[in-house]
Amino acid sequence: MAVGNVPFPEMLPLNGVRLGTAMAGIKKPGRRDLVVIELPESATVSGVFTRNAFCAAPVAVAKQHLEHCRAQGRSPRFWLINTGNANAGTGETGMRDAHASCAALAEQVGVSAQDVLPFSTGVIGEPLPMDRLLAGLAPALESLSSDGVSWQHAGQGILTTDTRAKGATATLEVHGQQVTINGITKGSGMIKPNMATMLGFVVTDAAIETPLLDRLLRETVDHSFNCITVDSDTSTNDACMLAATGTGPSIVDEGDVSAFRDALQVVMTELAQAIIRDAEGSTKFVTLHVDGANSRQEALDVAFTVAHSPLVKTALYASDANWGRILAAVGRAPVSDFDVNRVVIDLGDVRLVENGGRAASYTEAAGSAVMAQPEIAIRINLGRGDESATVWTSDLSHDYVSINADYRS
Amino acid sequence: MAVGNVPFPEMLPLNGVRLGTAMAGIKKPGRRDLVVIELPESATVSGVFTRNAFCAAPVAVAKQHLEHCRAQGRSPRFWLINTGNANAGTGETGMRDAHASCAALAEQVGVSAQDVLPFSTGVIGEPLPMDRLLAGLAPALESLSSDGVSWQHAGQGILTTDTRAKGATATLEVHGQQVTINGITKGSGMIKPNMATMLGFVVTDAAIETPLLDRLLRETVDHSFNCITVDSDTSTNDACMLAATGTGPSIVDEGDVSAFRDALQVVMTELAQAIIRDAEGSTKFVTLHVDGANSRQEALDVAFTVAHSPLVKTALYASDANWGRILAAVGRAPVSDFDVNRVVIDLGDVRLVENGGRAASYTEAAGSAVMAQPEIAIRINLGRGDESATVWTSDLSHDYVSINADYRS
Repeated sequence: MAVGNVPFPEMLPLNGVRLGTAMAGIKKPGRRDLVVIELPESATVSGVFTRNAFCAAPVAVAKQHLEHCRAQGRSPRFWLINTGNANAGTGETGMRDAHASCAALAEQVGVSAQDVLPFSTGVIGEPLPMDRLLAGLAPALESLSSDGVSWQHAGQGILTTDTRAKGATATLEVHGQQVTINGITKGSGMIKPNMATMLGFVVTDAAIETPLLDRLLRETVDHSFNCITVDSDTSTNDACMLAATGTGPSIVDEGDVSAFRDALQVVMTELAQAIIRDAEGSTKFVTLHVDGANSRQEALDVAFTVAHSPLVKTALYASDANWGRILAAVGRAPVSDFDVNRVVIDLGDVRLVENGGRAASYTEAAGSAVMAQPEIAIRINLGRGDESATVWTSDLSHDYVSINADYRS
Repeated sequence: MAVGNVPFPEMLPLNGVRLGTAMAGIKKPGRRDLVVIELPESATVSGVFTRNAFCAAPVAVAKQHLEHCRAQGRSPRFWLINTGNANAGTGETGMRDAHASCAALAEQVGVSAQDVLPFSTGVIGEPLPMDRLLAGLAPALESLSSDGVSWQHAGQGILTTDTRAKGATATLEVHGQQVTINGITKGSGMIKPNMATMLGFVVTDAAIETPLLDRLLRETVDHSFNCITVDSDTSTNDACMLAATGTGPSIVDEGDVSAFRDALQVVMTELAQAIIRDAEGSTKFVTLHVDGANSRQEALDVAFTVAHSPLVKTALYASDANWGRILAAVGRAPVSDFDVNRVVIDLGDVRLVENGGRAASYTEAAGSAVMAQPEIAIRINLGRGDESATVWTSDLSHDYVSINADYRS
């Protein structure tokens, strides 16, 4: 299931950026499962990666290669992505396979192995089927294209349990020239990114120095991918990459940085929300807004406690205005000394809780009418400060259980 | 569903302790839903309560009354328990109702209202149906009995989504005299007790001074009720009570305290495990043992991270030896600087993970054979210290979703 109809957007080509895909049969035949993204020499590249201690071999190698290129004063030229196998929990063999994949691609295109960053997604703990992956490189390279539609094909080529390709695009004007930002992402389960998500690839044709690129990626991810959760499970393979090709105008002045960051935030947030709209088994898209907190972290703690509650998630699935479960989840959030009498909880435009209990104005009919919608906003005011946070999540359905009990992801 | 066949044990009567039940029709007619437990004047009483900030009115009143009695140098005489309504999230009305329930019982038995501790369980946020509750007091008092079977009736009278009454009993010999410990508990969903569970009532005929009773309750709950989780949701109404009637031998000497604590721990652990065996929709009883940790808290953090992972829980439901999900959950646990190459994970007697990846000796057939069992042990050695913890949990099934999507608990 998935919430709403979210078509893949039309994307403009980016100068010097080409995308290619192949059906390598890594897990199943007849589907795109290998993606190559080529960046121009002028590009700058930034990445954030999972904080899972059991991070996958490709994550370790991508970090190494990115660091190596930076030390040499250049940027990586290729992102190599496979679905169907995460190459995680694979020990030494996994590291060898990730390195060998990069080396094989590098040889075919005439760059060094460190110019290739590898990414994998799929089942954890199985060895990467290297013969099929390596055989897929040539057809993927042959299909390299800068057409807008190549972004959609790449979006398809990175999916696992996702039901649809996810992309977002934005344009802005800098010094009279158009700047474009294109991004794709995948993810549907094992989603509670910590510093990144599994997987996001965003490219702009602006020119942005590496330190600024790093900062923009970190800031926009913190308010997008790091604010979503399907099931609280942080993946071993999360990565979100941002490249600026350097072929367009330079983003340097404060005003340009601010305008660019706003556009980038729109793309990042759309991509992150696209993951939640396509969460495994989801029937609801839920926005949790917490304000009146003493700190952003406190607001996030409350929002994630509610977002992870199986009882809140099953009530959302049932369209049951069982607000007692929201109250119970807020009450167990890791916030010290909070005064429940100051907490106000709204479901859409219906007040649920005030003065420590059910709002006097609340009616079951009004609550049920909001819960019946596919898109639901829950607003929690803690009444103790000025900080806030917004988190997006999905419900917990029979299909979530079926997908994860029947499918080895 | 429930795991295994766990009959209610035969219990010995305790001198001066009587239990009565009534069918008050608080939520539905024709089932025991009101319980009165009478304790002798000689008793000492201890309790631990939920840390949920939105704690229910009866929790607040029970704490007040217990404190009041202690300040007066006496112990509460009655525990009054209803199921079908939690009297939580009910604001001022809820407090008034809890006080009025105690006062009504106190008047009928000739004690003061503070001698009655109230407990409620059931739906959150509905007002307590006071007329039906008050009408049920007389029949409950008429049925007061010290028979062993009255414990089983009381066990039935506190259930909500539970499928069976849960009791545990133990005897030990102190100075040539027999000491008995009887306990009942309830709980099946919204179970991740924090300092207590919803609800446990344990009584012994030993004589134990209040400070020691408090310590024994805290210590044994920390290794039983505080080590279970169904769905990570800490209830608003959790409470675990321990009373020592004082009619039997005194527990004072170190050796006696140690022997008594061991027996009490057996009762507490059996009750806590009974909740997990009857967890909502459960088909598996899972023991998570973490050792090699730097602290007990670290071991608990890892154990609960795995126990709360929806992906691990659905794999357990599917009997799928998808050990990559266990590895991913361990890797995202809040433990700083841990070396994944030292982590060893065993599923029953099958080694899953060592040296940062799948164990060389692992076979899918061996893993699947363990996962097919209804009782599964997962052992995680972090390889960095000498501390350990054991946590018990259940799987996540279609029935869990059905129970919580269809039933307003």
